[in-house]
Amino acid sequence: MSPRHLSVRLVAALAIALALAAPADAQRRARRSAPPPPPADTSLVAAYRDAAGRLIGAALASDVAWLRLSELCDGIGHRLSGSASLERAVEWAARTMRADGLANVTLQPVMVPAWVRGEESAEIVAPGPHRLSILGLGRSVGTPPGGITADVVVVRSFAHLDSLPDAAVRGRIVLYDVPFTNYGETVRYRSAGPHRAARRGAVAALVRSVGPVSLRTPHTGAMAAYSDTLPRIPAAAVSLEDAAMMRRLADRGERITLRLTMGAQTLPDRLSHNVIGEIRGRERPDEVVVIGGHLDSWDVGTGAHDDGGGCVISMEALRLIRALGLQPRRTIRCVLWTNEENGLRGGRAYADSLGAAIERHVAAIESDGGVERPVGFDVTVQRHGGDATDSLRTARAAAKLAEIGQLLAGIGLTRYQPGGGGADIEPLMRRGVPGIAHRTTMEHYFDWHHTPSDMMDKVDPVELRRNVAAMAVMAYVLADMPGTLERSPAPPATESSGTR
Amino acid sequence: MSPRHLSVRLVAALAIALALAAPADAQRRARRSAPPPPPADTSLVAAYRDAAGRLIGAALASDVAWLRLSELCDGIGHRLSGSASLERAVEWAARTMRADGLANVTLQPVMVPAWVRGEESAEIVAPGPHRLSILGLGRSVGTPPGGITADVVVVRSFAHLDSLPDAAVRGRIVLYDVPFTNYGETVRYRSAGPHRAARRGAVAALVRSVGPVSLRTPHTGAMAAYSDTLPRIPAAAVSLEDAAMMRRLADRGERITLRLTMGAQTLPDRLSHNVIGEIRGRERPDEVVVIGGHLDSWDVGTGAHDDGGGCVISMEALRLIRALGLQPRRTIRCVLWTNEENGLRGGRAYADSLGAAIERHVAAIESDGGVERPVGFDVTVQRHGGDATDSLRTARAAAKLAEIGQLLAGIGLTRYQPGGGGADIEPLMRRGVPGIAHRTTMEHYFDWHHTPSDMMDKVDPVELRRNVAAMAVMAYVLADMPGTLERSPAPPATESSGTR
Repeated sequence: MSPRHLSVRLVAALAIALALAAPADAQRRARRSAPPPPPADTSLVAAYRDAAGRLIGAALASDVAWLRLSELCDGIGHRLSGSASLERAVEWAARTMRADGLANVTLQPVMVPAWVRGEESAEIVAPGPHRLSILGLGRSVGTPPGGITADVVVVRSFAHLDSLPDAAVRGRIVLYDVPFTNYGETVRYRSAGPHRAARRGAVAALVRSVGPVSLRTPHTGAMAAYSDTLPRIPAAAVSLEDAAMMRRLADRGERITLRLTMGAQTLPDRLSHNVIGEIRGRERPDEVVVIGGHLDSWDVGTGAHDDGGGCVISMEALRLIRALGLQPRRTIRCVLWTNEENGLRGGRAYADSLGAAIERHVAAIESDGGVERPVGFDVTVQRHGGDATDSLRTARAAAKLAEIGQLLAGIGLTRYQPGGGGADIEPLMRRGVPGIAHRTTMEHYFDWHHTPSDMMDKVDPVELRRNVAAMAVMAYVLADMPGTLERSPAPPATESSGTR
Repeated sequence: MSPRHLSVRLVAALAIALALAAPADAQRRARRSAPPPPPADTSLVAAYRDAAGRLIGAALASDVAWLRLSELCDGIGHRLSGSASLERAVEWAARTMRADGLANVTLQPVMVPAWVRGEESAEIVAPGPHRLSILGLGRSVGTPPGGITADVVVVRSFAHLDSLPDAAVRGRIVLYDVPFTNYGETVRYRSAGPHRAARRGAVAALVRSVGPVSLRTPHTGAMAAYSDTLPRIPAAAVSLEDAAMMRRLADRGERITLRLTMGAQTLPDRLSHNVIGEIRGRERPDEVVVIGGHLDSWDVGTGAHDDGGGCVISMEALRLIRALGLQPRRTIRCVLWTNEENGLRGGRAYADSLGAAIERHVAAIESDGGVERPVGFDVTVQRHGGDATDSLRTARAAAKLAEIGQLLAGIGLTRYQPGGGGADIEPLMRRGVPGIAHRTTMEHYFDWHHTPSDMMDKVDPVELRRNVAAMAVMAYVLADMPGTLERSPAPPATESSGTR
């Protein structure tokens, strides 16, 4: 064993010892390795047992969240950035917040991309013909009006693509036939696949839909922005069935000729809005707990889980807190971000609008994992640029959430881990705000994600109520408890007084 | 209780007593109520153990069925009656049977309907708009070019429809939102729904797709032929999600305005073919065991389970029997019927072509329940017009199949019940031929049935091999065993010498 290896082992051992010594961390590990113990009657739990019980009871007895989700998803429909229906949803949300008596209801202007799908189709011309089930990827260009007709080369990975000779790729349509493992791993092909295919001279790119099951179900989603140095080739997702069929044909040595026709266009940016409403804090109104989800969706299905549910449970949490007369010490603000799916401009615009007020954001909770059975809340404290003590801050924040979470044990929540966040609260987290992800089982989330099937029949009304209860209790206690989660210090370049 | 009821009860009691007294039946019930006993070494089992072992071994070691299903489904595609691709499949099947060395390979001409779907779409104009996921029903007329725009009335049943006042139905589009229970019960709305809506003055009919699960998946299928006395209104299936959304909107009191556009047409009948090939019997070549499935499919998906699999396992059973040199006592004939889905003309044409030879058809096995895990074979002996002793004949036939089935216990088949049949062998059964249904678990069959998702990725290659083995052994033993299943006697009007 080399001295270098030895020193690596020593550092590892020290890290483990440090972790074992941290009481919050040890407590958390113990909690994760076994069913949650009966609620300890800490002062926090004792102080909020009554309020939590009232919030949970009100949430579980109410069908307002369900009716509102139906108004949003069935009554308005999809909410693609740049669409008229998204702006109808913006108006609906603001109107609803006002009806609920929230304070400072605001439409925050955000210019968003206006990508439109147009008509699209794909057909295997030979053998067959087979009409395929596809969805163009957000940001993709369209094809010429008659489509692109070319032979298909089926690859299993980026490495496989790169191993092929030029003649096998140039002028062809690349199909990435990559089975779903998990979202983070598989979505790389949707994101970077078109560009890596273009680099090898392909004329279009197809990606096996990023999901585990299919009834000829294509999953759309955004590809990365085009590079200025590569040809802009059109890109679409095909259903699992179509990818498997092309794989079988290729394995049998058949030549596959495919025609792809896409009318996609990116029009000039359009005006959209974040929708904001709040309950002002009774003692420290300038300190803010943000909760919310993103109001935009893809243009297929009605975005019931992604992310109509996250929006509705956030609105409903505030409505219930207010209706029960529970004005918290700090402000709770509901932000429904625009343009999460294909631009992230809403999240950036909200953070950029805050100026120094961002230092008084004490926590941000995003719900963007659907509204299946809620399991808990994960948290990360990690500002941009890093801080060696952020992992310890994160562990302590998780322990605090777990303490609050004892109030939610009765509706089944048990998970409070490091690793929270969300696409819309990322700009807040980069500036030190503790970022919290509302977590659900996600048992079927990626079956429906970005597909025409993400509709309200996939939402269990009982679980929706539990999600409202979880969000209401977590937001209320974070906003009312004596202290706050420890922030990551602001970068030295600006100021360092942000911590408390 | 009236004397008439009493006599019904007496007859029922006698029937039960008779059934209990039948040893074959008792044996069968015992077999069903517990795991199958170790194979009894009856003379039949002993006589065929070696042949069955060779057939099973050859089937489980071969990938020919899989490759052929890929040639058919991936290489040719859908096989709608009247389409060029169905006739390509006909040519492929005949070519393949000849390559396998089958005897008397024949294309039997059949004129079939030529219903074509055309382009179709449906949109909820308000609220929304929502683009729906639909498939027109086979036999439906199209709409005028601009579509039909009308309000939707959502009903739960025929009784509900009939209970509505005229004003609630006339000029509207009726949606039958009937949850799936089982196919037979639910498919009534697809079949008769359009006509019953037309009778009430509706301008179009929509039916919730006949299936248990959905990822915005519409299921097509045939509606009953139009009546001459009612307006011919267009009809389509909508996905479960769409039906549920319209139900929610209606429950909230929203007015639903929908535009349905269908380009469906019925063109003049076209020439298609049943494909027939056989192994001639070595002793009684005029006695025939028929096995097969239907070669046609709907025009969505590639009919992998419905019924490419049934065709391929039937062809493959004959290929293996012949390749192993197992010429049976009687003829085994593979018939791949055309036009099962929207006309049943292939099954009728085959039966009609037989003349008196139908009396020498000793059994007919149809595989039209997909190729999931095989579980057994059900049988019915019941000629048209009925015969009081047919239920006894059926019970004895089931007992005989169960005896043969001991040879298939090692690959998991245990079910041999009364209740066999198949749409294509129905015309044979009406004339006394014992009709046998190849049975599979059908665990997911109706998830895929008549949808774009019925493709080869839904076929497990291992189960496909087991299905080949089951079909090969059952067909071979039925064709080779000393006796035959008892037929139902031919109606007195013709002749009564058909039984043996």
